[in-house]
Amino acid sequence: MSLSASYSNATYRLYDDKADFHKKAQSIAVGLTVGSWTDLPEAAKEQMQKHLGQVVSVDVSESSNPGERYADIEIAYPDANFSRDIPAFLVTAFGKLSMDGRIKLIDIRPSADFLSAFPGPKFGVQGIRDLLGVHDRPLVMSIFKSVIGQELPNLREQFLQQALGGVDLIKDDEILFENPLSPLEKRVEACMSAAREAEQATGQKLLYFTNLTGSTFQLKDNAKRAIAAGANGLLFNVLAYGFDALAELAADPDISVPIAAHPSLAGALYPSMHHGISAPLLLGKLMRIAGADLSLFPSPYGSVVMPKAENLAVKEALLTPSLPQKPAMPVPSAGIHPGLVPLIMGDFGPEVVVNAGGGVHGHPGGPAAGGRAFRQAVDAVKTGSSLVQYAERHKELKQAIELWGIRTS
Amino acid sequence: MSLSASYSNATYRLYDDKADFHKKAQSIAVGLTVGSWTDLPEAAKEQMQKHLGQVVSVDVSESSNPGERYADIEIAYPDANFSRDIPAFLVTAFGKLSMDGRIKLIDIRPSADFLSAFPGPKFGVQGIRDLLGVHDRPLVMSIFKSVIGQELPNLREQFLQQALGGVDLIKDDEILFENPLSPLEKRVEACMSAAREAEQATGQKLLYFTNLTGSTFQLKDNAKRAIAAGANGLLFNVLAYGFDALAELAADPDISVPIAAHPSLAGALYPSMHHGISAPLLLGKLMRIAGADLSLFPSPYGSVVMPKAENLAVKEALLTPSLPQKPAMPVPSAGIHPGLVPLIMGDFGPEVVVNAGGGVHGHPGGPAAGGRAFRQAVDAVKTGSSLVQYAERHKELKQAIELWGIRTS
Repeated sequence: MSLSASYSNATYRLYDDKADFHKKAQSIAVGLTVGSWTDLPEAAKEQMQKHLGQVVSVDVSESSNPGERYADIEIAYPDANFSRDIPAFLVTAFGKLSMDGRIKLIDIRPSADFLSAFPGPKFGVQGIRDLLGVHDRPLVMSIFKSVIGQELPNLREQFLQQALGGVDLIKDDEILFENPLSPLEKRVEACMSAAREAEQATGQKLLYFTNLTGSTFQLKDNAKRAIAAGANGLLFNVLAYGFDALAELAADPDISVPIAAHPSLAGALYPSMHHGISAPLLLGKLMRIAGADLSLFPSPYGSVVMPKAENLAVKEALLTPSLPQKPAMPVPSAGIHPGLVPLIMGDFGPEVVVNAGGGVHGHPGGPAAGGRAFRQAVDAVKTGSSLVQYAERHKELKQAIELWGIRTS
Repeated sequence: MSLSASYSNATYRLYDDKADFHKKAQSIAVGLTVGSWTDLPEAAKEQMQKHLGQVVSVDVSESSNPGERYADIEIAYPDANFSRDIPAFLVTAFGKLSMDGRIKLIDIRPSADFLSAFPGPKFGVQGIRDLLGVHDRPLVMSIFKSVIGQELPNLREQFLQQALGGVDLIKDDEILFENPLSPLEKRVEACMSAAREAEQATGQKLLYFTNLTGSTFQLKDNAKRAIAAGANGLLFNVLAYGFDALAELAADPDISVPIAAHPSLAGALYPSMHHGISAPLLLGKLMRIAGADLSLFPSPYGSVVMPKAENLAVKEALLTPSLPQKPAMPVPSAGIHPGLVPLIMGDFGPEVVVNAGGGVHGHPGGPAAGGRAFRQAVDAVKTGSSLVQYAERHKELKQAIELWGIRTS
């Protein structure tokens, strides 16, 4: 561990109607580092200075709730105080503090030294595009519909039908765990054989993200078993295991496939105004630092909603060049149908995965037609056509639009 | 995995001003299990019935916010749908659902079959008392004060001074990570040598909970290194690593010492009315099922506050005989001084750890006197004396009361 003057910062939004926010900031900077300061003898101060937290800024504002005020407080924590892992930094910066009133962790700015411990996504945006050989359009992902209680032949057939429509990525349902009907290796073999069959038909590559589950200390073994069975992607419920598990999976050279981070349980953490961890930090910056190649999060379009500004801040955290880790693919999810594609591409730009479950499986022509409708919608936007125009010559898109409509805002 | 008709239940509090809560409950029961139901053919229904979630109850109430209404909804999830680990159950019951509006997970009732996979605390209340040979009074725990940047001799001396006052348990600060000044094994050796020195002086046993940190996949190794170096307890920031890491540490026969669960980061999850996971579930039931021998949580007395009703519900979850796992010791923490002991013993009963940092170190006579003052306060209540009365013959208690006062409610 370096004892250089390197600091990693955390920013909080603290709600309090009466507090002296500057005093509070000072008490955080001292309390979460050396414990006490003013009563230390001078010799001890000299020795402890390099471990003392620093107040970077205190910005006081009025809240949208009448009479409520808050402050955004940024504190710099000496890197000398914690090891180079996410649990250590989160416990330092928000362990005890999370329980201290109405306070939300809204951002972190780890030092270059801290960040250097995280190789991040192995593939990232560019790497996934390279794997697929697709560089000129948003990717399309399809989600299994009903997976629990299904025999392998049913799963295989469902995989095949989704794949035949030309989607790029197919992911397991995040609630599919190890079970006697579709155990990990057999499931991977069945789905990858369907993927090869579809690739023969479509001439297009496919990544299958199989759900990595089980006991924490067997995650690496399970990942390697899945990969040995042919899996070319992993889905992972990061928040059920902690960011460090993802970081270590991503850093393992033998786990040689992209990892898609599922936001499962994230709603316990980000939606409250007064508590928790902001979505851009939780599902954006931390997922990317820890090594997610793709990060799923609730889209602003569906039934499971996150406000659009927050959505775009998640995207920004995943893509910004200001982090040393490779950019990760944003995957806004839930409620996505082909009529939303122009809006998604407008909001998110070219680096986005259009991800759908019901929007594929609910297509009147079945899931293959559903996948085609999405690809057609993407092509329409890419070539500058309106969906209505393009649908005149593409019946799957036409059917999709008739069913779900087109949303322009 | 058994395919018997065994169910594990989850209860949610769902806030919505307009929703048909019964319809919503039905959509949860179907959506989080088989995905769809009414459009399934009859043959498939027969096959899928054993995987279908069931609505157990829907209780609609008015919220304390004017005009706001909520429902407590209990859903039974077939055990056949998930593996026997906490991530699988939490992802099933609250993975996606956590992001679906204003909804909080308030309780779970796992099946006997699910619970049977969790050996739980190795020691629990009785086992810790047996280790210490203390059966007739609340235990007293002391927390290191300033640990970051301290050389080993300073830590040892701090340990010794705390120990000489007759406390039963001493815990590391949860923000002390692997570092060159006090690396794990050297820290354990120094503190345990101080513990032996104190035991010689006081004739009393001591447990030292050293902070278990580092990368997820090395936690077991680190725990075993600490134990090999002499540690007789481990402190663990459970929520930074997930409940399964705790469950696996607790289930490992070679990790033969009690584990104290620190609530670090819990404030990101429990305090919001509308989101997250309730404190009694998070810091009570889940900690106990996963195997914490002691669970720390914010006391209702200090600056870091949890309402008393919630506190007592955490305690109840840790102690209730209705779970097969051994009861775990409740450790209400923060803001504890000797003048609170009668209140703590009244609120929590005999099975409680009186846990203090500032209340030990801030004593005018130093930490040894601080520990003595706590032990005296406990003895006073035990023998039916008032603190004021008892303080007449016990100067450390007298000094503590003069400084901090006595709180009776």
